[in-house]
Amino acid sequence: MPRRIVVVGAHAAGVEAASAARRADRTAEITLITDERHAGYSRCGIPFVLAGHIPSFRGLVVYPLAYFKMMKLNLRTETVVTAIDPSAKVVEVRDKEGIEEKIPYDSLILATGAFPFVPPIRGREKEGVYVVRTIEDGERIDRALKEAKSAVVVGAGLIGLEVASSFVERGAKTTVVELLPRVLPLMLDDDMARVVHEELEKAGMRIIVSRGVDEILGAEKVTGVSVAGEEIKADLVVVATGVRANVELAKRAGIAIGETRAIKVDARMETSVNDVYAAGDCVECISLITKRPILSQLGTTAVRQARVAGVNAAGGQAFFGEVLGASVTKLLGLEVGATGLTEEAAKRAGLDVISGTLSSKTRSEYYPGALPIKVKIVAERDTLRIVGAQIVGGEEVTQRINALSFAMQKGMTLKELAAAETCYAPPVSETWEPMVLVAQKMLR
Amino acid sequence: MPRRIVVVGAHAAGVEAASAARRADRTAEITLITDERHAGYSRCGIPFVLAGHIPSFRGLVVYPLAYFKMMKLNLRTETVVTAIDPSAKVVEVRDKEGIEEKIPYDSLILATGAFPFVPPIRGREKEGVYVVRTIEDGERIDRALKEAKSAVVVGAGLIGLEVASSFVERGAKTTVVELLPRVLPLMLDDDMARVVHEELEKAGMRIIVSRGVDEILGAEKVTGVSVAGEEIKADLVVVATGVRANVELAKRAGIAIGETRAIKVDARMETSVNDVYAAGDCVECISLITKRPILSQLGTTAVRQARVAGVNAAGGQAFFGEVLGASVTKLLGLEVGATGLTEEAAKRAGLDVISGTLSSKTRSEYYPGALPIKVKIVAERDTLRIVGAQIVGGEEVTQRINALSFAMQKGMTLKELAAAETCYAPPVSETWEPMVLVAQKMLR
Repeated sequence: MPRRIVVVGAHAAGVEAASAARRADRTAEITLITDERHAGYSRCGIPFVLAGHIPSFRGLVVYPLAYFKMMKLNLRTETVVTAIDPSAKVVEVRDKEGIEEKIPYDSLILATGAFPFVPPIRGREKEGVYVVRTIEDGERIDRALKEAKSAVVVGAGLIGLEVASSFVERGAKTTVVELLPRVLPLMLDDDMARVVHEELEKAGMRIIVSRGVDEILGAEKVTGVSVAGEEIKADLVVVATGVRANVELAKRAGIAIGETRAIKVDARMETSVNDVYAAGDCVECISLITKRPILSQLGTTAVRQARVAGVNAAGGQAFFGEVLGASVTKLLGLEVGATGLTEEAAKRAGLDVISGTLSSKTRSEYYPGALPIKVKIVAERDTLRIVGAQIVGGEEVTQRINALSFAMQKGMTLKELAAAETCYAPPVSETWEPMVLVAQKMLR
Repeated sequence: MPRRIVVVGAHAAGVEAASAARRADRTAEITLITDERHAGYSRCGIPFVLAGHIPSFRGLVVYPLAYFKMMKLNLRTETVVTAIDPSAKVVEVRDKEGIEEKIPYDSLILATGAFPFVPPIRGREKEGVYVVRTIEDGERIDRALKEAKSAVVVGAGLIGLEVASSFVERGAKTTVVELLPRVLPLMLDDDMARVVHEELEKAGMRIIVSRGVDEILGAEKVTGVSVAGEEIKADLVVVATGVRANVELAKRAGIAIGETRAIKVDARMETSVNDVYAAGDCVECISLITKRPILSQLGTTAVRQARVAGVNAAGGQAFFGEVLGASVTKLLGLEVGATGLTEEAAKRAGLDVISGTLSSKTRSEYYPGALPIKVKIVAERDTLRIVGAQIVGGEEVTQRINALSFAMQKGMTLKELAAAETCYAPPVSETWEPMVLVAQKMLR
């Protein structure tokens, strides 16, 4: 009898896991279940459709129905998994017609993702208040944006700033309100966040930090928000104050939840319950730096975990390691990236760290088009092991973050980075790479 | 009495060494001697002035005279070092007026660079035949280019292709003739070189490989070249068939020369003669991969060696490591980079290697502007240690090469690369980084 693999979720993690399972077991019956109408699309692309960079939300579908057919994956959309019974090894589902069914599995993969957490702000139920998670969310915001002259985004994390940037590009007067004292508070320290803050304000975005939204104003439909006594006009409000792992289903099935409130998994991505795997935004990771549980909730982490879960669910043997949480984005032309711990997070984790920053150019001084770049490195004081990096600047931030991530994954020290070989040509870099220079500066 | 430090050469390596010496010893008397009229300029920038990207050759001067003044470095231009007497610890010089002088030193740094090697092609002495090394070379070519309708570049190495690209951009009908069977023969394997070859031909350059120039034609002034029976018209010819380390001075002073015909140095960049250091294109390096002597002759290697030489010449203690020879360039919009050994070079060095290539995109499929990128990795068959990488493609090649260089400097294996964490956002990268995908592909 063919192995029956059920995957709950059908986006980055779900489809990747199902595909890996298929490659590992050609005869398995693989079923993906999602409560959404659309499957296999990139959530990360939504802000860039809003900005108009990508022509339509349909463009975000990375895995069209033909893919599921080709890979012989049974896809059930608009179907809710209502319960998991690990002892009977069945999932209970209900489709959009209300028809209930029990689907048996040999291996189950939970790729239930996360949901936008909306803090209890007064007025949050008003018309014109949105979150950003699904294509439908994106379409709703897009429609509202067509009429909107002003907008407020609550939360200056990655999604908040990406959405706010798209609003600025669409010509809406946009204000971002962040409760914490800086933008990208989990990704950057104060000194680096200040650069992003200033550049975005220069580009036309208003940013208010260290303040919460006291109330969302308007009768039925939103007209603005109240922040520290000030009324800020807004035809639409997006709440982007972070996501929470979707663990209800797992919890009710008796699957262990970790201290980060996400699903605990071992290195094979198996949960506390036999034959139940999990991957993506719903699972807890282990930090490469602190060896403690953390949340990663990034697309790259999701797909890498999903491959491991898929292989193991299909009877193979694969392992997932520890994470750095390397992330990057591009905001109104400004690239921002980070990997490992911020200085603040490192100190909070009890590490004794030193840090250094350096401002340089992305190309030879004499080569036109060179853009400013600022690099920050955080390292352990005694071992000089690099534990974090942040980069804000014009070009090739993504691959610089990857370079430092590779370095950290191999335990590179500041001394090694200070002596590291890099490549150079006038149109693409400086003779002395800023990542190397900051390490040299820190050692002096 | 202050320490007397003499530096022969005043470009990348010379100035960097002198500056490092100055920082290490505030009171030293530091003298730089160059036979050129201009000091402290970037040779690497010359092709990009020719292309018109940089407005003038003067723009290449990275260290103006004010810098030498500020750093209290005595600069002697148009002065030839005629001999070194290591027993008396003096260098003998002759300035442009023909006045000879003996300059005593406590420490001597040789940054004598390299010279363009011109093979004995018939007609190479004709008017209109140039090499590319100095600003004067650049100015001569620039003048000739103003009148030229067609040009031939002999040699398809980095400099040859950069110069040929500049000619194409300036509107000259340009042909490159390479004796070896591919372009960038030291940097790329055949499969990767083919991509560069095709892209450059698409962009309007003609490239002939596996053929030498039999004769440079014309009465006094060049009119063309003869290649395998074909006459190719050319109003100017540039010979870019590589450089040779400038070791005459060192050789005559009894300083040991290595098997690569460059100056042998230890990890402190000291030559076989006490208190004589060397750095840059004139020295021999040790390969990080094979642990055997190699030539690097890159700007990044030069400045890193020079800092070490400068510190040690000033009584400090610094060490230079082994090299990968990481290089990059941008040719008519096409980025090309490499680090470590090519597959061919690895096999020639006796390594048992495997290789893999992968073609991907630089951004999410759905994000406009994604460019094709091709990555090749070479690894040792038994240990799976990565020993080389080549990348040809549209964006962020430089920092990808740096990422792989960091990985190789820390001994990363294919397995580790296949599981490596990278960062992602739709405008700047793909969810699965091609460097990681090629490693996964090689392990299957």
